[in-house]
Amino acid sequence: MKRTLVADTPQEVDKQVLLKGWAQTIRDHGKITFVDLRDRSGTIQCVGQNLPKITPESVIYLHGKVVKRPEKLINHDIPTGTVELQIEKVEIVNAAAELPFDMGKADLDLELPTLLDYRSLTLRNKKQQSIFKVQTTVIDAFRRALQSKDFMEFQAPSIISAIPEGGSEVFKVKYFEHQAFLSQSPQLYKSLLVSVFERVFSVNKVFRAEPSVTTRHLTEVVSLDAEMGFIESYLEVRDMAEYVIKFILKEVAEKCSEELALFGTTVPQVSDKIPTLKLREAQQIIFERTGRDVRKEKDPSPEDEREITKWAMETHNSELVFISHYPTQYRPFYTYPDDDDPEYNQGFDLIGRGTEWMTGGRRLDNYQTLLEHAEKWNINPEHIELYLQAFRYGMPPLGGFAFGAERITMHILGLKNVREASLFPRDMERVDVRLSAKSK
Amino acid sequence: MKRTLVADTPQEVDKQVLLKGWAQTIRDHGKITFVDLRDRSGTIQCVGQNLPKITPESVIYLHGKVVKRPEKLINHDIPTGTVELQIEKVEIVNAAAELPFDMGKADLDLELPTLLDYRSLTLRNKKQQSIFKVQTTVIDAFRRALQSKDFMEFQAPSIISAIPEGGSEVFKVKYFEHQAFLSQSPQLYKSLLVSVFERVFSVNKVFRAEPSVTTRHLTEVVSLDAEMGFIESYLEVRDMAEYVIKFILKEVAEKCSEELALFGTTVPQVSDKIPTLKLREAQQIIFERTGRDVRKEKDPSPEDEREITKWAMETHNSELVFISHYPTQYRPFYTYPDDDDPEYNQGFDLIGRGTEWMTGGRRLDNYQTLLEHAEKWNINPEHIELYLQAFRYGMPPLGGFAFGAERITMHILGLKNVREASLFPRDMERVDVRLSAKSK
Repeated sequence: MKRTLVADTPQEVDKQVLLKGWAQTIRDHGKITFVDLRDRSGTIQCVGQNLPKITPESVIYLHGKVVKRPEKLINHDIPTGTVELQIEKVEIVNAAAELPFDMGKADLDLELPTLLDYRSLTLRNKKQQSIFKVQTTVIDAFRRALQSKDFMEFQAPSIISAIPEGGSEVFKVKYFEHQAFLSQSPQLYKSLLVSVFERVFSVNKVFRAEPSVTTRHLTEVVSLDAEMGFIESYLEVRDMAEYVIKFILKEVAEKCSEELALFGTTVPQVSDKIPTLKLREAQQIIFERTGRDVRKEKDPSPEDEREITKWAMETHNSELVFISHYPTQYRPFYTYPDDDDPEYNQGFDLIGRGTEWMTGGRRLDNYQTLLEHAEKWNINPEHIELYLQAFRYGMPPLGGFAFGAERITMHILGLKNVREASLFPRDMERVDVRLSAKSK
Repeated sequence: MKRTLVADTPQEVDKQVLLKGWAQTIRDHGKITFVDLRDRSGTIQCVGQNLPKITPESVIYLHGKVVKRPEKLINHDIPTGTVELQIEKVEIVNAAAELPFDMGKADLDLELPTLLDYRSLTLRNKKQQSIFKVQTTVIDAFRRALQSKDFMEFQAPSIISAIPEGGSEVFKVKYFEHQAFLSQSPQLYKSLLVSVFERVFSVNKVFRAEPSVTTRHLTEVVSLDAEMGFIESYLEVRDMAEYVIKFILKEVAEKCSEELALFGTTVPQVSDKIPTLKLREAQQIIFERTGRDVRKEKDPSPEDEREITKWAMETHNSELVFISHYPTQYRPFYTYPDDDDPEYNQGFDLIGRGTEWMTGGRRLDNYQTLLEHAEKWNINPEHIELYLQAFRYGMPPLGGFAFGAERITMHILGLKNVREASLFPRDMERVDVRLSAKSK
């Protein structure tokens, strides 16, 4: 007999079906037993008499008849609430061992270490799954937004042979007889590919060996990167970033309304045009609004980011705001200085709901200028040979942007810890299992 | 003035336009100069008088008028062959240095080391670019085929804490104070996620430290992986693999006809149903056709794979053929033995045009059996704890398949070396630059 998906049962009233899934909850009322069966499409209440012993989370196959529920017993909380399955036969395919905690609750309400120690179990919870429905929607929307603008997807390398900018926060790999490293960013690859494809994007792993255990750091991150050529200034890059983020938020709002509701949130409010402030303008506004004088800081603090978001909401009805023109000397060597005021650059960050969502900007495109900057920033040109080559043989004016899939998921859903937004988060203390428990 | 893409010029006859791109070839005929300008959309012939000196591959902006070419001067080889640009002004944005080889030819005809040493330059060649147009089409089709069947995309980890099956061909990573490794396959992760999402796929890097320099090995590979639950036997996995590969080939045929033509090839011919042979059946056929007795071998040799492809073409009009039921003891511990003949398993390979394209099969789903196999295969259960956890708490019957993006691109286009199918191939001797040139 062919399997029927749980979501299709309301169309199968009075018919014999075979349902396959997990026994989410079992309520034993003496002779009668209620089983909530879960599959990838949803859950349904099933009822039977003299059933064999079923443990929660066991994989079971249920044969039986779909029947309409009486009006007063309709469950309006689930799409299959108008029906139930009258169980005629139970096959226990793989019985689950006793659970370490109650899986029957809508909110698991576990401490983070427990949530991660039992990842294959905790991910079965609808609310936990929702996080990754949102994440996969974000990633898919990112790709489709850029494909529609002629961007070509590429696979960025993970193993690299040299670290252009220092190397303290880089993982080292023993590469046969050589020393290699794990890439911290596809930046140089996406830039050099602009000299080939004009417009490229990638969804790739980047690796950060920062020895810090915070709520915002992972050692392995999914980076969403885009880069484009033949621009006139950073404004076209900012506009492309705005188009992409708006497309993503629209897709999440449309496809993940149920998931957003589980977290009691909505996607951020965005005005027709996201406002843009230069860093110094933003700092002046903060000074005028709060009296705090941050007008000489090189970066906005978290407090500043929250204040400028408030300003954007009040003046532009937008929970997102761009800040541009950071001090040139504190940004990477390839960042393009402003033509009129080279102390500041054509870089920008997107601040969302009071925290950084995305970073981008225009890059240097002239080979000689790039070499001069590399020298000033103490970068060994031999370490970026392949990258420099692209500029030696004709590079268009270019720029791009990047953001992390885990962080944006965290920000959209208002999660407290970025680890919740990674299926298998890696940090200083955990790679699937807790590292402290292993021999060093 | 707004940029016009080269491909749009035939719609701009007698209009002033601004074209931006690379000077692909420059033909100086005294006062008159011909420039073939290339952008992401195509190439166009441009002609002007008293032009400044332009070096090949320089980024230039050309202002001028699009004019119709006389009938006898139409170039039928390119879509813009009916028009040319009369150059009125040239801006040289970034002049290219002298090229190390002739970039004006349709076929670069370079030795592989040179092709890779100048990657940012050689990728600008149309034929080289075509390889990655095909690859990105394959990857995109893989995703869309599975999304339409309810598969959820996930991001598989790269850094892992233990190597379940030996470890000689694994890259080691210094992970803070611990030893970690680079993942050779998302197999265990995709399997455990079947207990969560039922159906999952991933496009992720895998890393192979095989110390061999062959035409088929890369150390960093893009692996396309899928896994599904609630199957009855390996046949449903095989059918899903067949659906996916046919969808990919159809997409490549439709979207990459020009690219296929550049390589003088077409996608493989596939019958309505790809034939399936058990390994022993295939070996019997080989014996009967050639007299070579390979009936006790544990794997088909390259010669065997070519012979069985011949058989498939002759008897089923198919350049693809599945071989199933390999000896259980030589396959991974999680492979599911055949119910009637447990010496052989429910695994399969897809052979295409005489070589392996894909591998897949059913996996064990019972926790106790899995533990027994792990012991028999000498696998430390502590090294696969998270994986085993999923089975302890209820895993459906499952199976899946995987293939490499570079290899399938190589096979479709008939490339001689898999390195040609990687933008930035990594091997024992090269990570962007040649490693022998670096200090060890």
